Amino acid sequence: MSTDPLIVFTPSGKRGHFPVGTPILTAARQLGVDLDSVCGGRGICSKCQITPGLGDFAKHGVTVAADALSDWNAVEERYKSKRGLIEGRRLGCQATVQRDVVIDVPPESQVHKQVVRKRAEARDITINPSTKLCYVEVEEPDMHEPSGDLERLVLAIETEWGIENVHADLHILQALQPVLRKGDWKVTVAIHLGDEENAPRIMHIWPGYYEGTVYGIAVDLGSTTIAGHLCDLLSGEVVASSGIMNPQIRFGEDLMSRVSYGMMNAGGAQEMTQAVREGMTALITQIATEGGVDKRLIVDAVFVCNPVMHHLFLGIDPFELGQAPFALATSGSIRLRADDLGLNIHPSARVYLLPCIAGHVGADAAAVALSEAPDKSEDLVLVVDVGTNAEILLGNTEKVLACSSPTGPAFEGAQITAGQRAAPGAIERVEIDPVTKEPRFRIIGVDAWSDEDGFTAAAAASGITGICGSGIIEAIAEMRLAGLLDASGLIGSAEQTGSARSITDGRTHAYVLHDGSAHGGPRITITNPDIRAIQMAKAALYSGARLLMDKFGVDTVDRVVLAGAFGAHISPKHAMVLGMIPDAPLEKVTSAGNAAGTGARIALLNRDARLEIEQTVHRIHKVETAIEPRFQEHFVNASAIPNSADPFPILNSIVTLPDVSFNSGGDTSGGRRRRRRA
Amino acid sequence: MSTDPLIVFTPSGKRGHFPVGTPILTAARQLGVDLDSVCGGRGICSKCQITPGLGDFAKHGVTVAADALSDWNAVEERYKSKRGLIEGRRLGCQATVQRDVVIDVPPESQVHKQVVRKRAEARDITINPSTKLCYVEVEEPDMHEPSGDLERLVLAIETEWGIENVHADLHILQALQPVLRKGDWKVTVAIHLGDEENAPRIMHIWPGYYEGTVYGIAVDLGSTTIAGHLCDLLSGEVVASSGIMNPQIRFGEDLMSRVSYGMMNAGGAQEMTQAVREGMTALITQIATEGGVDKRLIVDAVFVCNPVMHHLFLGIDPFELGQAPFALATSGSIRLRADDLGLNIHPSARVYLLPCIAGHVGADAAAVALSEAPDKSEDLVLVVDVGTNAEILLGNTEKVLACSSPTGPAFEGAQITAGQRAAPGAIERVEIDPVTKEPRFRIIGVDAWSDEDGFTAAAAASGITGICGSGIIEAIAEMRLAGLLDASGLIGSAEQTGSARSITDGRTHAYVLHDGSAHGGPRITITNPDIRAIQMAKAALYSGARLLMDKFGVDTVDRVVLAGAFGAHISPKHAMVLGMIPDAPLEKVTSAGNAAGTGARIALLNRDARLEIEQTVHRIHKVETAIEPRFQEHFVNASAIPNSADPFPILNSIVTLPDVSFNSGGDTSGGRRRRRRA
Repeated sequence: MSTDPLIVFTPSGKRGHFPVGTPILTAARQLGVDLDSVCGGRGICSKCQITPGLGDFAKHGVTVAADALSDWNAVEERYKSKRGLIEGRRLGCQATVQRDVVIDVPPESQVHKQVVRKRAEARDITINPSTKLCYVEVEEPDMHEPSGDLERLVLAIETEWGIENVHADLHILQALQPVLRKGDWKVTVAIHLGDEENAPRIMHIWPGYYEGTVYGIAVDLGSTTIAGHLCDLLSGEVVASSGIMNPQIRFGEDLMSRVSYGMMNAGGAQEMTQAVREGMTALITQIATEGGVDKRLIVDAVFVCNPVMHHLFLGIDPFELGQAPFALATSGSIRLRADDLGLNIHPSARVYLLPCIAGHVGADAAAVALSEAPDKSEDLVLVVDVGTNAEILLGNTEKVLACSSPTGPAFEGAQITAGQRAAPGAIERVEIDPVTKEPRFRIIGVDAWSDEDGFTAAAAASGITGICGSGIIEAIAEMRLAGLLDASGLIGSAEQTGSARSITDGRTHAYVLHDGSAHGGPRITITNPDIRAIQMAKAALYSGARLLMDKFGVDTVDRVVLAGAFGAHISPKHAMVLGMIPDAPLEKVTSAGNAAGTGARIALLNRDARLEIEQTVHRIHKVETAIEPRFQEHFVNASAIPNSADPFPILNSIVTLPDVSFNSGGDTSGGRRRRRRA
Repeated sequence: MSTDPLIVFTPSGKRGHFPVGTPILTAARQLGVDLDSVCGGRGICSKCQITPGLGDFAKHGVTVAADALSDWNAVEERYKSKRGLIEGRRLGCQATVQRDVVIDVPPESQVHKQVVRKRAEARDITINPSTKLCYVEVEEPDMHEPSGDLERLVLAIETEWGIENVHADLHILQALQPVLRKGDWKVTVAIHLGDEENAPRIMHIWPGYYEGTVYGIAVDLGSTTIAGHLCDLLSGEVVASSGIMNPQIRFGEDLMSRVSYGMMNAGGAQEMTQAVREGMTALITQIATEGGVDKRLIVDAVFVCNPVMHHLFLGIDPFELGQAPFALATSGSIRLRADDLGLNIHPSARVYLLPCIAGHVGADAAAVALSEAPDKSEDLVLVVDVGTNAEILLGNTEKVLACSSPTGPAFEGAQITAGQRAAPGAIERVEIDPVTKEPRFRIIGVDAWSDEDGFTAAAAASGITGICGSGIIEAIAEMRLAGLLDASGLIGSAEQTGSARSITDGRTHAYVLHDGSAHGGPRITITNPDIRAIQMAKAALYSGARLLMDKFGVDTVDRVVLAGAFGAHISPKHAMVLGMIPDAPLEKVTSAGNAAGTGARIALLNRDARLEIEQTVHRIHKVETAIEPRFQEHFVNASAIPNSADPFPILNSIVTLPDVSFNSGGDTSGGRRRRRRA
């Protein structure tokens, strides 16, 4: 048995005997304990702080004496007096082992820290970014042994950090000599660790020890909105989040109208590429300003988007995506430099686009898969990313299927008479009394319900301006529950429903949710064309999910995850009343928020996650709804509210859907028929 | 023993038995015989042409019957009728073996063709460029098995050509879909095969089978001139060669004056970078026009240059190269994209800069080493690259030493009273009668000597305008041989020399080489300051070489190679009379022409040569003349003509150097002393 002192690291439990005088950092490295250091053990960066235990550690069979570690040395003393150290902490590179000791590595001293996600079903994110900061001391030039400054820097990186085959971009070569001399041959470098396409590269260089951090940006580039998270690449923290409207909206609200724009207009695709890149530039400026971050410190960027946005962002004409066989120019992940895309971040920042799954199932769906990991779920989980296009994943550890379905923008309040984007004044929650047929509602920006005290005063600021996506779903579901709407999607007349809020609206009827006209405000109604628009959208969503269930050979799913910014606001009960999603226990329907954005953030913070999703995507089986005969059948069935074929036993055990029918013999369904013939 | 027919390939001698019906191309590939193919054996490209033997091949123990190969098939017949085939040739991919056969692979059917160099001591260049053309047939998209067009192209490249991990630049992604469809899923791609920094990448794509070739450019970027060779990357042929003056000359004639310009003027280095890049753009346009080549087909570029030009071209301030320890920003080879440097060739063309040897010994010296291969010479060879800066290599298979010496531009006709660049009208050859002291000469553009019939008429076109670098060397050496000039470099007076051509020129004398003033032309004289300038230059050159000989521990060398465009025109005898180069048998002094440019061309045409020179450079021992005490001593000795210390026994056995001295007690050497104090 070794007579050298024993070091036990917690929480890892790794242990080993080391000669008296071994620095704790050295021991940690030899044992593979995850203890951070940027300065390479020179007592500068303080990233290697550790907490020695004291007393009896029965679990480890160790009793730690007060003098288990060396006394404070001058470096530690100076660091503490200048910068301060938390009580009980030591610098792992300075403190050396003297006797048996238990060393705790606090979370902030771990390189591969965890970013904890709140939801129970979501995995934490391990910080393991593509770019690393390293402090190095470089040999000075020697005429007798001539070698370039870069070559000596590269050698220092290799010797001190074990990173081999490091190269430098041209701008680094141009900056190198003055920086090395300014730092007196001590510099901090940001190194991109490389990937299957590229050797490791020096991204940036600072004279001396660089106190700061570097950043990355994770962007969910949607058809309607572009949302970005600016992240500290070392801590994993989100420094700022921001979003803008996609400037391409002026070329068409949905994807197919943009593809058409490109087909009908010479140079149209380039125009849209320019628009989205300008939008990206604006978003980056906005988010960097918000976070108080120098844009040139953003050294890594991850983008997720649907295939059409993917192609347009890259400057690829999406023409082929507009017609069978919906061939992507490329389905694999993409690695570029920021200046390839004209991004206003560090010029040689690395850009990563997640792989696409198929011609209609993009990198955004891959990001959702990365975030929600259906392939790691024991339960059979249905993940629905609700947006202008719905991406749908169904699977478990056995297999995962994916498809997309063109829901259109109705869920986001577009094509709805009183529809508006989610903004103060928009009705977001609705309840209708099944007896009186009277509604009450809440608007964004006001906590009180419309029938509660103080609502009128609080709502005065924004007014009651319209109804947003989640509001329209609740309104229609409540109308169905209150017997104002039948299963076919017809609104009853005042006579049929016994409510004066049912009004005649051309050849159909509408329901008055709020009449502000007496006070100069709008009259907010739900019209039968609104119902039709939502029916079309939800039928597309449901039939996509149902098709995957067919392919999987199941009639039910264990749980449903609603992703997408909009998904966060959908009430599971109302979604199920509408028949948007398959019948499932309500508590098994959860929201994942912007899962695509989270997936982008995971790929940004963890380079291994990139390889993981590249492999996962290959294993996902893609289902093309456009060529599946049963899709049409499911679509027709799903046009009913909730569904004309599939039973919803769990839903029916919770609510009672009135058995009403308002078909008066008039051509009330003609709207849809006409649309089909068009 | 196999009963399958035997195939013997010549000239390789590789042989093997193959089943009846095996295509010759297939057999060649299996045996590793170097037989080209771009179309992958589809009978399209005709690169795999072979010549079957007939009759008795005793050497190989084979008798070849007339029916040893299969009959002509439809593909071969069609090819022959459309394009023609040399008598006796077959397409290796179509002809199959039937009986024992001897197959000759003609040189043009070899992938790794040799470019033969004329000089006996030079190695041939094996064609093995970084970029390869491959014809592939790509699977069409299938909705049931969705994958990107790029991924299917990459798979085809991997399957048909065995090139793995191929990626694509963004512009390829942007062009891919229409090209694939235009070519009906058959395309030709140019693939950069990758290197230690980069995975293989698709550089360009053409629909269908691309009949053409791709080009590369090899550039010797000198302080004074920039010379480029445009090469066909497949045949190795030089398509066009051209040169321009380096536009940086306006910032200073020699390197140190340019470094000073950068130090004295804010933004000066950037100005010079811009100037040289603009020059490069002009050169590329000029050379592409001359070669009738589309600039976008230039997919590879190799540059060689001295360290200051290297840094300025890359946009690195050469400040550090102006002072000890002469630290290079980078000494290693550099791999970039053309658009990093703003070059007007294919935007993602690859750019390669050879490694530098030391702060004063650049990539041009490395290129000379690659071309002249002193490390592979059994003899001890001295390689001198004569230019504004002289690069000197001394070595053999045992070891190689290198240094540089600042000769200045005198050898190129600058700083010489009647000096001019080598152009029509410039005196390039001189002879002086040792008895009459009368000269005769030749000018560039006229074959006759000045005392021969027809000279006057022939010279009328250009006139006799001045004297170029090789002319000044011959003139001074001839003056020394004729007793007009003493060993210290003083020109004798008319009295001392007995020649009226010796005239008084201020406090010293000059020699009138030609007086055209009677006909309105210039009077061309060699003045004592001219002699001093050449003395300084040749002393720098010789003392550098001598220093390397000291370090090597030798007093003589076996052979001398004069490189540099100017080196091609130097007469070995005259150079030795001047004491420019060490004493050696005249037949052992050869010219290598523009060896740096040749080295660049080798690195362009053969990717393995890049790795080779990178390794060689590491083994070259660098000598820094500036810090070697003996350099000054050698310099002073070498100021004499030929030398005040070193004996020149071989030279003295060929010529008699008159023992004259023209030191009249006047301060004739003051010119140099003053310069030294300045």
